[in-house]
Amino acid sequence: MLGNRLLWAVARSCLQRPTYSLHKITTPHTCKDVLFKRRCFSSGAGAESSSPLQKEGQSGALYRFLIYGKEKVHGKSYLLAIAATGCLGAGLLVALADAGRDSTRSDSDEAVSPEGSGKKKVVILGTGWGGISFLKSLDASKYDVRVVSPRNYFVFTPLLPSVTSGTVEARSITEPIRRIIRKKDVKFHEAECTKIDEANKKVMCRDISDVKCKGKEDFELEYDYLVVAVGATSNTFGTKGVEEYCHFLKEIEDAEKIRGRIVDCFETASLPHLSDEDRRKLLSFVIVGGGPTGVEYAAELHDLIYEDLTSLYPELQKIVNITLVQSGDHILNTFDGRISEYAEKKFSREGIDVKIGSRVLGVTEETISFKSKATGKLMEIPYGMIVWSTGIGTRPVIADYMKQIGQTDRRVLATDEWLRVKNTDGVYALGDCATVEQRKIAEDIADLFKLADKDGDGYLSVSEFVDTMDNVRMRYPQIDLYMERQHMEGVVGLLNDALKKEKNVKLDLEHFSEAICKVDSQMKSGPATAQVAAQQGEYLALSFNHMAMGSPDEGPIRVRGGGRHRYHPFRYRHLGQFAPLGGETTAAELPGDWVSIGRSTQWLWYSVYASKQVSWRTRALVIFDWTKRFVFGRDSSRM
Amino acid sequence: MLGNRLLWAVARSCLQRPTYSLHKITTPHTCKDVLFKRRCFSSGAGAESSSPLQKEGQSGALYRFLIYGKEKVHGKSYLLAIAATGCLGAGLLVALADAGRDSTRSDSDEAVSPEGSGKKKVVILGTGWGGISFLKSLDASKYDVRVVSPRNYFVFTPLLPSVTSGTVEARSITEPIRRIIRKKDVKFHEAECTKIDEANKKVMCRDISDVKCKGKEDFELEYDYLVVAVGATSNTFGTKGVEEYCHFLKEIEDAEKIRGRIVDCFETASLPHLSDEDRRKLLSFVIVGGGPTGVEYAAELHDLIYEDLTSLYPELQKIVNITLVQSGDHILNTFDGRISEYAEKKFSREGIDVKIGSRVLGVTEETISFKSKATGKLMEIPYGMIVWSTGIGTRPVIADYMKQIGQTDRRVLATDEWLRVKNTDGVYALGDCATVEQRKIAEDIADLFKLADKDGDGYLSVSEFVDTMDNVRMRYPQIDLYMERQHMEGVVGLLNDALKKEKNVKLDLEHFSEAICKVDSQMKSGPATAQVAAQQGEYLALSFNHMAMGSPDEGPIRVRGGGRHRYHPFRYRHLGQFAPLGGETTAAELPGDWVSIGRSTQWLWYSVYASKQVSWRTRALVIFDWTKRFVFGRDSSRM
Repeated sequence: MLGNRLLWAVARSCLQRPTYSLHKITTPHTCKDVLFKRRCFSSGAGAESSSPLQKEGQSGALYRFLIYGKEKVHGKSYLLAIAATGCLGAGLLVALADAGRDSTRSDSDEAVSPEGSGKKKVVILGTGWGGISFLKSLDASKYDVRVVSPRNYFVFTPLLPSVTSGTVEARSITEPIRRIIRKKDVKFHEAECTKIDEANKKVMCRDISDVKCKGKEDFELEYDYLVVAVGATSNTFGTKGVEEYCHFLKEIEDAEKIRGRIVDCFETASLPHLSDEDRRKLLSFVIVGGGPTGVEYAAELHDLIYEDLTSLYPELQKIVNITLVQSGDHILNTFDGRISEYAEKKFSREGIDVKIGSRVLGVTEETISFKSKATGKLMEIPYGMIVWSTGIGTRPVIADYMKQIGQTDRRVLATDEWLRVKNTDGVYALGDCATVEQRKIAEDIADLFKLADKDGDGYLSVSEFVDTMDNVRMRYPQIDLYMERQHMEGVVGLLNDALKKEKNVKLDLEHFSEAICKVDSQMKSGPATAQVAAQQGEYLALSFNHMAMGSPDEGPIRVRGGGRHRYHPFRYRHLGQFAPLGGETTAAELPGDWVSIGRSTQWLWYSVYASKQVSWRTRALVIFDWTKRFVFGRDSSRM
Repeated sequence: MLGNRLLWAVARSCLQRPTYSLHKITTPHTCKDVLFKRRCFSSGAGAESSSPLQKEGQSGALYRFLIYGKEKVHGKSYLLAIAATGCLGAGLLVALADAGRDSTRSDSDEAVSPEGSGKKKVVILGTGWGGISFLKSLDASKYDVRVVSPRNYFVFTPLLPSVTSGTVEARSITEPIRRIIRKKDVKFHEAECTKIDEANKKVMCRDISDVKCKGKEDFELEYDYLVVAVGATSNTFGTKGVEEYCHFLKEIEDAEKIRGRIVDCFETASLPHLSDEDRRKLLSFVIVGGGPTGVEYAAELHDLIYEDLTSLYPELQKIVNITLVQSGDHILNTFDGRISEYAEKKFSREGIDVKIGSRVLGVTEETISFKSKATGKLMEIPYGMIVWSTGIGTRPVIADYMKQIGQTDRRVLATDEWLRVKNTDGVYALGDCATVEQRKIAEDIADLFKLADKDGDGYLSVSEFVDTMDNVRMRYPQIDLYMERQHMEGVVGLLNDALKKEKNVKLDLEHFSEAICKVDSQMKSGPATAQVAAQQGEYLALSFNHMAMGSPDEGPIRVRGGGRHRYHPFRYRHLGQFAPLGGETTAAELPGDWVSIGRSTQWLWYSVYASKQVSWRTRALVIFDWTKRFVFGRDSSRM
């Protein structure tokens, strides 16, 4: 346990924020390198990643910290150095684990020789967060790049709930792909991939738009590398009636349909010959799913109705009903508990009926029925509209591909830490259609230990640990992620703590296995969010650029083979998340374990979402839309 | 002829712009009245129209001109007075014609007694230019007003062609009806009128939107007054294949579909496996109809393609083809010849293929065929998209209503000059679904003459003419319209001219019948434009307000009955028209017979269209859209 804590503390100090003492004991040059590297990894300055010097990463800083420490430490710095040495054992065990990876093929096989006969063909499926992020960072001049997607634009999906209410317009959050790739040598084809032919390395595509060239709807593209970023469908969990009667919130058309439907419900309820019961049914809005999207949509709906529609339909104000059905015990259950609680109270105050712990049994043309998990009580309510926003399902093309590669009984494609789809050749997957199956350190622990224990004495000394520390943290990014999740802060306290408990910094296999197992058990794959997809896309593009430039291998050492991995494994960096709750109030989990709720957070939300826009055009449009809403309210034209 | 010219000249001087001499010989007070009245008629200061004093109209000014003239004329003014006196005869004959009207029912029957038992029920069908203009000017507190329309918003239709290219966004030119009527006691029902039941004075309506209350889609509304402003459909002239394969440009959805289709054609043409022939077909855009809408759409399409799309689809630039098929001998043939010529040259320079004098024979899924009227040559060209923009057709509900009231074999409803549908009770029609059947002066000429010739000497003296002049011009607005169309300028020259030819200003019936016949033969009903519908709506609302307030009759004297008509007949005032030609160039016919073409006219167009917006909201949005287009270009997302 101790070693474990030490390991995280040191690693975190390098990854997150250089502590004062670290600055003090490294030379300015070294310190600069650390910071530079951090940027290279986390915010991805593409061109920088080709320099081997810059590739040594955060653990390189740790290495230097220890080396320099030996020569320069004085006073308290000496203690720090000792502590660091002490934690080496823990880290070492982790480092050792890398040795165990028995990759079915070498990742260096994929390197492209830039002086080869022709450019390698890269086909990208999908133009969502993953695909676009990949495209934007890719050095397209090195490959023959083709993008295939049934929609010729990118959607800034986090603002989709705002489109449902008209807070922002649909076209304000979309950017044509051809604008994004305008300065790149990339070909775009507006079509849907209907099949990935693993055996022949090609994809079958079909033009599914209204305008078709008769008899020529289908075509094929060959690939050397395939980047699958097609996203996911909504998951109905097989619930009866959902496909037929519910609205989803995945695409821009979905948001537009919902927007029209809300107003349509109000218009129909305004007809002169209806009963109160009819009107009540029409104005019963149900949202299934209490995740961030469902909650944000509920908030937007509430704002639309009470800020704009009730003044236009005053006689209907009192019979509107919004119900949020959540299967879990709380809404926003992936957020900090304080945010869930705040959201539930706010919704309750505003008259949004939150049904927690309720499982939807089925949907008919007129009603939705659900059951309380706690009491077993059945409920059935009539509705005017249901928005279904729970989980993600598998697209047919992915389901078919999974069969080909033996990944059946899964919802999404499994990739390794380099985003390569397992059991395939040259196929990468990212975003909602894939999940990284992180290799457990525990599986490799014996090999790692063997590799690190150079003198073969059964113990890892400080220098042995230091020698492999870089590679361990690179190979098993869960170490850093775990550290972040455990809210570990600063290195000094932990080092001191460790030194008090145990003077012996030479660690045996058994002692650290315990700690390692804990790391593995707490690791989860990244959530299906835009943030993950975007980071994956960027990561993969940098890897492709690295590959194309013929740069030396920069990854961690191969535990079971010789040499190094071609490049670093993917490392997700969680930058926090927002949950807009309506009425100019937003809740946020911010980096550094901060939780913020309120109007000021709403403004933070505005600024972050404006800054994250994919182009200056959409940025200007979104800001104008927000302003427009403040000045004129939301538009209630039903079109 | 002479009398005729004199009449127009004098009348025009009052209607259009007070000439210097007129100013000089009227008192400031009288002059003010003239101007005021003009505003009352043409730009419709609603509340003012109820004052009987203000109702005397332009001819009242003429009257005063003559009266004051007698007292004050000096020097040249004297000549003018003589000339005016000379023209009286001409005018008189016109005036006489009013006597002949044999109205099938009295328009004063329709007056509502405000102190009646309950408010009269007014049902308005349609929320286009006519309906909204009526609603905006109506004093809704005096009636029980209900509006029925299948769309809950008003569309600024002159900007529809701009929506097809994305120069402005659809929602920027729409305003929800409920916003427009927010401060009025008006009920809106989003439904389509399926039948007007003339016998029972009610309308049958149906909710045709997606959200319906099952089994309760249909409802009825009773009316005392029905205002039919449902507009028209596109007229296919029975051409085969048009309904199935062509796009129209009537509704906001049409414009959005066209916008999507253009990009879809480009996207499909970009697919990798197509032949050049396929691509050429996909990028062949055909517009049928060389009227203002067709021409503006062609210009917008050209701008969209060459300003925005070609940079995104550079390989397709050279194979785009735009064809404009016009059955007439020139495009824009309702415009000044210089404008037609300029437009044709500009289009030819830009590569838009204008096929004048060509009649479309039919449309298939792949091609459109047409025949040159002059040479008889048949042509067939493949297309990617056809936009059909020729003439107006009859909506089913109107066709059915026509059968009920015996107006068969017509395209639109016939109304009298008070916009009352002929052979009906309490039904008014305006806009594209109706046409004013102007009563000919010649029909009433004998009665008019008899009425005016008070001394029965067979000749009309100056004073006899003056006494009936007001009523003649009110009753037969074609006099003013004819005058405008004849480009008659100023009164002085004409008066002098008249005096030279004929000193005797006492005119007999025969002498002026000739002139009157000429007036009638040149009269046409107003074009099917927004301008006409808006003026009609405003006119009718002012009439309704007048009726509700129990104001004294303000119309012209009844030639065949006693007393006066309830209110003035409708009088269309043509304020000019624009024809945007693309590339920041617009042609315009402006009031006062000015023709203007060029970039400065484009800016005039911007300012006029911005100022004519129905709300500050749409005004801001449209201006923002124009700015956005300048800065970022047009959006090419296909949604």
